[in-house]
Amino acid sequence: MVVKVYGPAYASPKRVLVCLIEKQIEFETVDVDHFKGEHKQPEFLKLQPFGVLPVIQDGDYTLYESRAIIRYYAEKFRDQGTELLGKTIEERGLVEQWLEVEAHNFDPPIHNLVINVLFSPILGVPSDTKAVQESDEKIAKVLDIYEERLSKAKYLAGDFFSLADLCHLPFGHYLVNQTGRGNLVRERKHVSAWWDDISNRP
Amino acid sequence: MVVKVYGPAYASPKRVLVCLIEKQIEFETVDVDHFKGEHKQPEFLKLQPFGVLPVIQDGDYTLYESRAIIRYYAEKFRDQGTELLGKTIEERGLVEQWLEVEAHNFDPPIHNLVINVLFSPILGVPSDTKAVQESDEKIAKVLDIYEERLSKAKYLAGDFFSLADLCHLPFGHYLVNQTGRGNLVRERKHVSAWWDDISNRP
Repeated sequence: MVVKVYGPAYASPKRVLVCLIEKQIEFETVDVDHFKGEHKQPEFLKLQPFGVLPVIQDGDYTLYESRAIIRYYAEKFRDQGTELLGKTIEERGLVEQWLEVEAHNFDPPIHNLVINVLFSPILGVPSDTKAVQESDEKIAKVLDIYEERLSKAKYLAGDFFSLADLCHLPFGHYLVNQTGRGNLVRERKHVSAWWDDISNRP
Repeated sequence: MVVKVYGPAYASPKRVLVCLIEKQIEFETVDVDHFKGEHKQPEFLKLQPFGVLPVIQDGDYTLYESRAIIRYYAEKFRDQGTELLGKTIEERGLVEQWLEVEAHNFDPPIHNLVINVLFSPILGVPSDTKAVQESDEKIAKVLDIYEERLSKAKYLAGDFFSLADLCHLPFGHYLVNQTGRGNLVRERKHVSAWWDDISNRP
């Protein structure tokens, strides 16, 4: 059964795609155009009632929320491809902790930055410079904590690559390559080495 | 080993306490006073570098982020107390999905409401009436989706009580009992029955 992933062009669905690649799971993608509002159409809302991406269909099984989907496949195909949950329950606990940190500390300020630095100009809407400044400050603080953590372990949850690292790829890519904030990563030795490592995986 | 839970007076740590009770795990609590800024003191930041609650210590093992902690104990003590992750990997996938929905759709507008309706008066700060109105509208929309879901299954992830339901208790309590928004639950038949069920567990 080939997994169907909706909305491959967007950041959150990319979390799912990277996970499926690491787990060597075959998938196909279904385009959903945000700018045309396709994610708010009745057909899509039947799959994902909140009208956000991604959602997957795997035979009869439908699942949404990118971080739920990547946990599901990491668990279901535990012995296939890269092990992404750690080996022990304690390691998995730390994977879960850093998945939550990404969702609540890393993702939101970068999301704000993307809206104000990338999308506002495209939409012809003025950027909120105060929001940009606050986001930059928040990201710097968060990355200081990452720097401290990564000075003690090669990856966020320990000395093994996991979902905790993988989930940072889409918004990390925005930060480094698309919003001109590469310096926030490059100024921090361990964060910089970690980013090079996780963003250059095959 | 008795689990040490920091900050039992606050909403997110209560997610952990409810989970430990369901899993019949012995714990003790350590008070952390937000109003005195104890969560930003160096001693606390050594345990939780982001300066937020909760954090647990279990022997040598330290873990933070409430939803990571509850997953850890639900997994570690799978055969003790209430099963909270579902029986199959597919059921667990749905538990994860609704845990994410709680974090991203249910919690944020109630959080805003609590700040503006409960805390602003205490702190003598004016409430943001626009934020209150937006929060009320968001909560209503989210609960409409819950109503639809709970018309088809007794609990969020299916016909079994799980972490997905449990994680709603602290902010659900704020909504129903402390911000005068009980009507948002009571106006929805299935949400109302679900809330009575999960909030009246022993």
